[in-house]
Amino acid sequence: MRKVKYFVANSLDNYIARKNGAVDWLFMDGTDYGMGDFFKSIDTILLGRKTYEIALRQNPRSRNSKSNFGMKSYIFSRTLKLSLGDGAQVISQNAGAFVRSLKMEEGKDIWLMGGGELMKSLLLENVVDEISLNIHPLLLGSGVFLFPELDKQIDLELINSNIHKNGCIQVTYRIKDQAPHQK
Amino acid sequence: MRKVKYFVANSLDNYIARKNGAVDWLFMDGTDYGMGDFFKSIDTILLGRKTYEIALRQNPRSRNSKSNFGMKSYIFSRTLKLSLGDGAQVISQNAGAFVRSLKMEEGKDIWLMGGGELMKSLLLENVVDEISLNIHPLLLGSGVFLFPELDKQIDLELINSNIHKNGCIQVTYRIKDQAPHQK
Repeated sequence: MRKVKYFVANSLDNYIARKNGAVDWLFMDGTDYGMGDFFKSIDTILLGRKTYEIALRQNPRSRNSKSNFGMKSYIFSRTLKLSLGDGAQVISQNAGAFVRSLKMEEGKDIWLMGGGELMKSLLLENVVDEISLNIHPLLLGSGVFLFPELDKQIDLELINSNIHKNGCIQVTYRIKDQAPHQK
Repeated sequence: MRKVKYFVANSLDNYIARKNGAVDWLFMDGTDYGMGDFFKSIDTILLGRKTYEIALRQNPRSRNSKSNFGMKSYIFSRTLKLSLGDGAQVISQNAGAFVRSLKMEEGKDIWLMGGGELMKSLLLENVVDEISLNIHPLLLGSGVFLFPELDKQIDLELINSNIHKNGCIQVTYRIKDQAPHQK
């Protein structure tokens, strides 16, 4: 079955962007954070509306406000009215059920991009398989939070770690099997 | 000069305790997290009122609501009216100025215990030297937050890291020199 992988860079205080969405604080010093390997392992992107809008602003290739990020993309929103690139699709139905079904299809793994509400609902629906962070050595102080507040504890297994010379700590966790979520 | 070291265990989503202060989720499997070496390096504790009250509840030796945690302790509070153990003292004056002066005295290093308001004011006053975390492989979902929201970015240097077999990641950062805080 295809895995859903959350893969992001964060500050030690768990922000993934400044309040305005800026990621100018990311280290761009040529260190290999394994992104090449990661992108080879996926062929589909899941993202929420807010992440989609931020990503569009930051992606120079999508200045026309219309992008599929180079692969099949699903943008989760109940309200979004946007002209999307080929291969991009707005999903307004229940995210958990949609992703559960998507995981059963043929294909490579699936990138859950960005945190917030979509991550929360997919975590609670038990459809996320892995969390990969590239923890940067800084406190941003404020910004867009990585982890949503949850009403339950989720246990993880550390399956990979890499300490980079520039102080970035790259970690991958497997989300342990959970009991079905009680609403 | 004596260093002020923040030293704590946290969840991956940066909580240091459940909402009720409980730390039952900490791994107690005999792994050496370097606490013995850490405690040898300090002779003084700084803590805020809330952390003090939580620590008292959790420390069986202080059931009389009166403890100095075995060493010279300063509890920062503008309101605290408590009978304290010998060697414990309530500080109601400006925390930054007090700690700056304390660092100039003779002695071992100083443990900044617990997060929250005290950590925020000491970070902004540039008197914290190191942050050591023992990141546990779990999402608590909610609880007492490790890092306060700050109105500035603080850059860190990773000076030590240790990946434990149980999935705990122990990291120590030096806080880089900062420009004086502009209020």
